[in-house]
Amino acid sequence: MKIGIVGASGYTGLELVRILAGHPKVEISSLTSERFAGLAISEVFPSLKGFVDLRLNELSVHRIAREADFIFTALPHGTSMGVVEELIKRGKRVVDLSADFRLKDPDVYERWYGKHSCPYLLQEAIYGLPEIYREEIRGGRLVANPGCYPTGTILALAPLLEERRISAAGILVDAKSGVSGAGRNPSLANLFCEVGEGLKAYSVARHRHAPEMEQELSFRAGDRVKLLFVPHLIPINRGILSSIYARVDGELSTEKAYDLYRRRYQSEPFIRICPPATFPTTGEVRGSNYCGLGVMVDETSDQLIVIAAIDNLVKGASGQAVQNMNIMCGFPETMGLEQIALVP
Amino acid sequence: MKIGIVGASGYTGLELVRILAGHPKVEISSLTSERFAGLAISEVFPSLKGFVDLRLNELSVHRIAREADFIFTALPHGTSMGVVEELIKRGKRVVDLSADFRLKDPDVYERWYGKHSCPYLLQEAIYGLPEIYREEIRGGRLVANPGCYPTGTILALAPLLEERRISAAGILVDAKSGVSGAGRNPSLANLFCEVGEGLKAYSVARHRHAPEMEQELSFRAGDRVKLLFVPHLIPINRGILSSIYARVDGELSTEKAYDLYRRRYQSEPFIRICPPATFPTTGEVRGSNYCGLGVMVDETSDQLIVIAAIDNLVKGASGQAVQNMNIMCGFPETMGLEQIALVP
Amino acid sequence: MKIGIVGASGYTGLELVRILAGHPKVEISSLTSERFAGLAISEVFPSLKGFVDLRLNELSVHRIAREADFIFTALPHGTSMGVVEELIKRGKRVVDLSADFRLKDPDVYERWYGKHSCPYLLQEAIYGLPEIYREEIRGGRLVANPGCYPTGTILALAPLLEERRISAAGILVDAKSGVSGAGRNPSLANLFCEVGEGLKAYSVARHRHAPEMEQELSFRAGDRVKLLFVPHLIPINRGILSSIYARVDGELSTEKAYDLYRRRYQSEPFIRICPPATFPTTGEVRGSNYCGLGVMVDETSDQLIVIAAIDNLVKGASGQAVQNMNIMCGFPETMGLEQIALVP
Amino acid sequence: MKIGIVGASGYTGLELVRILAGHPKVEISSLTSERFAGLAISEVFPSLKGFVDLRLNELSVHRIAREADFIFTALPHGTSMGVVEELIKRGKRVVDLSADFRLKDPDVYERWYGKHSCPYLLQEAIYGLPEIYREEIRGGRLVANPGCYPTGTILALAPLLEERRISAAGILVDAKSGVSGAGRNPSLANLFCEVGEGLKAYSVARHRHAPEMEQELSFRAGDRVKLLFVPHLIPINRGILSSIYARVDGELSTEKAYDLYRRRYQSEPFIRICPPATFPTTGEVRGSNYCGLGVMVDETSDQLIVIAAIDNLVKGASGQAVQNMNIMCGFPETMGLEQIALVP
Repeated sequence: MKIGIVGASGYTGLELVRILAGHPKVEISSLTSERFAGLAISEVFPSLKGFVDLRLNELSVHRIAREADFIFTALPHGTSMGVVEELIKRGKRVVDLSADFRLKDPDVYERWYGKHSCPYLLQEAIYGLPEIYREEIRGGRLVANPGCYPTGTILALAPLLEERRISAAGILVDAKSGVSGAGRNPSLANLFCEVGEGLKAYSVARHRHAPEMEQELSFRAGDRVKLLFVPHLIPINRGILSSIYARVDGELSTEKAYDLYRRRYQSEPFIRICPPATFPTTGEVRGSNYCGLGVMVDETSDQLIVIAAIDNLVKGASGQAVQNMNIMCGFPETMGLEQIALVP
Repeated sequence: MKIGIVGASGYTGLELVRILAGHPKVEISSLTSERFAGLAISEVFPSLKGFVDLRLNELSVHRIAREADFIFTALPHGTSMGVVEELIKRGKRVVDLSADFRLKDPDVYERWYGKHSCPYLLQEAIYGLPEIYREEIRGGRLVANPGCYPTGTILALAPLLEERRISAAGILVDAKSGVSGAGRNPSLANLFCEVGEGLKAYSVARHRHAPEMEQELSFRAGDRVKLLFVPHLIPINRGILSSIYARVDGELSTEKAYDLYRRRYQSEPFIRICPPATFPTTGEVRGSNYCGLGVMVDETSDQLIVIAAIDNLVKGASGQAVQNMNIMCGFPETMGLEQIALVP
Repeated sequence: MKIGIVGASGYTGLELVRILAGHPKVEISSLTSERFAGLAISEVFPSLKGFVDLRLNELSVHRIAREADFIFTALPHGTSMGVVEELIKRGKRVVDLSADFRLKDPDVYERWYGKHSCPYLLQEAIYGLPEIYREEIRGGRLVANPGCYPTGTILALAPLLEERRISAAGILVDAKSGVSGAGRNPSLANLFCEVGEGLKAYSVARHRHAPEMEQELSFRAGDRVKLLFVPHLIPINRGILSSIYARVDGELSTEKAYDLYRRRYQSEPFIRICPPATFPTTGEVRGSNYCGLGVMVDETSDQLIVIAAIDNLVKGASGQAVQNMNIMCGFPETMGLEQIALVP
Repeated sequence: MKIGIVGASGYTGLELVRILAGHPKVEISSLTSERFAGLAISEVFPSLKGFVDLRLNELSVHRIAREADFIFTALPHGTSMGVVEELIKRGKRVVDLSADFRLKDPDVYERWYGKHSCPYLLQEAIYGLPEIYREEIRGGRLVANPGCYPTGTILALAPLLEERRISAAGILVDAKSGVSGAGRNPSLANLFCEVGEGLKAYSVARHRHAPEMEQELSFRAGDRVKLLFVPHLIPINRGILSSIYARVDGELSTEKAYDLYRRRYQSEPFIRICPPATFPTTGEVRGSNYCGLGVMVDETSDQLIVIAAIDNLVKGASGQAVQNMNIMCGFPETMGLEQIALVP
């Protein structure tokens, strides 16, 4: 199968190339980049030399549709939708890594991102979280790859909300992210010296990933879930640690909560549950497609604590995108994704 | 005034020396270290060369009592109490940076740290948070310097609890700390490669600083405060960012919460309030004695978010210790502490 | 004395403000910034709140000449010279932190930076390395503050070249710099993720600081010095470590080399010599105006190794600029610069 | 083939497990660790969960000889030799990652490391740098895996010394290493706060890897090579960048030097030559078995600059060890080692 990647010179684009280069069933055949068009991708990223030396071209839907069967779009939101619509019209299957097809309600999309140009595709698009929508993904032609923050949070909360073990109100997500989540465009805020040896919160209670989480968690709960989402920027390259707090509904011990997670995810290849009252670190998933989950109930406060750790560029973006492709195309779901985390 | 520092070769010891070397009213006259006894402190820390070149001695209460009028003890908990008791007996004034005199109830101390050898001093010891106990500190001879986590959290919550604007139950503290908080003793967990390029939670809902916070916050609230405290380790040297979540009691807007903080802390020299709905970073307090506070009310969830940023070695330890000394001795409170943060 | 800072919103501008805010003989009265004009500098850098809250204005030579007696220009090379010329014409004294007045030969300037608009000022400008040009600086009205790399390297090599103890040919400077040396303008190369957890050489044998070093070292040697300069970028905020290698001319032991440094710099307030065959670290000078030097002769290879450590923003830029101002104005040379390094 | 790893709970041990777990021709069957004996290796390193869950045992030569056919020893020098001797006696093939079998001359070994207990094995042991000793490795039963610093340096200098294009005297190696090279034993010097946000040289001209480099480079040159080796510690987890300086012997342009490298390494699977006068970074080899090389001749000084970048834990240790195993056992040389570097 021939693969096209639109927006290959960003971090998620690079990560797609890294993963797909080792995938036995596909061949990367078309890459685009506006900034580096004309160069080989291995000139932009020397780590790829000898693996993928394809030239980067300016985006032409016509060309990419001719050169590739299956396309990953890794463009900024707003820019992506037009390209995706054209590719779908040409009969291509697409995994879109932008935010453009994640929200079902065009009004919600508009409030957070601006006017949507092809709202009719929002209903068709499948939210690409395999642990929840595996069956729908299987037949899909357009998969909206989840945001990095939503991936960890939804995976952490789904077992509890599905079983009505926590209350749908008062959920709090305190997330800490490495800097690669901000992308590869030069900006003052992401300069080394603005981030290094420091900690800060940003977009407190106003981050665009909140409506995405609320949409999916409400589906899980069968009820309107509201959450308070507070992201923080941490001086590391990769990794998101989401510390999530919820009020227990009824009785729930740490052990029982743990069992609930074990049962829910027992056959999931990329979910790793920590022993009761122990928690995952981002180090142990770095460079891998795993989501680590740890759970504990604090019985004095009746608060449940669940912590999720992912590599934001793998399970939080490109690894999950390949997982989606595997499911869409009938390949083994873990194909190309068996890499062990890089520690230290 | 002659100053002794017991345990001068750890990070808080070094930081005391750094600050006191520039203090116009004192002279450092006695330093102890078990590990580096016999060396000049400037051989252990070349940054001090030319400023403080005093020799480190093994601890002898007799000797330090002879050489110094005012003593800072920067020893591990458990070890500190015996030394402090002896110094107090010899008529010295002491600021103790360990946990040994922070808790009022000897049973609580015992549960978290082990048996206390001089519980009669617990009542006399003053909890050294000047923004709360300034008057008591003034006449004190034994000040228990607050823990690094409690400092930021208590300063962040006091204005709200004192005015009963948040509920005493359900408070959540998600704190992120640099590694210097763990001290300077070699340990696997604090090796560069165990921490670098990673994120983790630790001592979840079980950290020893929780009872200290609860004690002081309960005093503020005039009610039993319980909180859920979840610390995280972050790959930076200095800084604690505490993101604190509480349920608003009654009505409270961001603006009103902000006003409340402004009023409460208006004459405090080391508290810096951010404009409404903006938040401090650890970078902007690095190396300084400031505590930055930012507040926001999320009206959809009725959650109040307050974020505190301190340098754990300054306002969270040695800077605050000097602030306490200044108050105890009638020096201007900011003396020796006027340093602007080092950015970047 | 009233101080103006042109280009106050970059890292060297901020560092000037930080240092000068604590200087007892001056008052900051005028600040410019193109990007942040209209904001208070403490809105751009909250660390300054309560210390310096002056408004940033767009650059107007007229205005700054009216508001200030003594001016620091912290603009990019090429932009600086015109402003400096105007200020000098208006009778102001200036320390220029750009490269515009460091090179004596306008042709050399042109080869590396482009056409010079006021070459007649190159001869008047004094190269602001106090350890070498103290007397000249005293009477000067225009001081060209040295580059960050040249500062450490010239201080490291001067004692040996002045005494003809190393050969003027074959000197090699392998320098490692933190990222703040690259300034605060957004660029792909200085994004956190491009630098973090990595090491690279750049501008190998082609860096613009090489001619500046060669000019000054040739003056020291009384002979044409050529050196090979290889800078590296390291994921830290502050600090330059320059490892310098030279061929011993005649006989020289480590002890004798050490004595030579001790003698040359014995009354220098900001030079710190390590014991023989031991070396400084950047950590021990971080945030301070010190230059640490360590020397060793490898007798098997007859190579002399000297390592210099500075904080590139202090002794490598703004601290040295203030040191120059102190000398120019007859203030005590260390005034405002007595700060101990921040460790860790 | 059944694999034993002695010393599996250090960083090189972990890295061996990570790589071998994905190797199609081997099965890890025996692991030892003194500190963590009794635990599963995946309890020590959760990143391995589901991949390798084998229990760690205390070292017993008898047991490991029974359980494994091929053994990697990753013990401290001095400890390793006895174990290796026993394993060889039992007919096992061994790749030893310690320094114990790298030096041919027992006197040199003794000077740097202490008395050798089985010097007769030094002659048999093959220095495991496949780019040089591939044929010898093929038939070997004991391979001494090169040190991390020597690997990059020897690969960088071999083409020039073999062709007599640089002089054997006056070679200078300024190396910068991440902290994982120091191993996983708790020590003050490698604590996060002792290394973070800092730079330092260490073991200047006295590092134990110098005699190893000199031995191998002398073989390459057919002449006694002396070099000056100056290592530096950098706050990153992984990576060594070695900047190497040598005097050109005769005439040599950058282009010709580049051609020489291309020719020498044209069929090497793990050597990557940068375009002339451009240089590799550690980022582009992180987590991979590549050695990046870049070369330039500075014609003004007749100095040749060659820079080598490796991941110290992969090509500098465990990856190279697996490469050696592949050659020893007749497996394809790149088997299990095809991983692309993790960027960023």
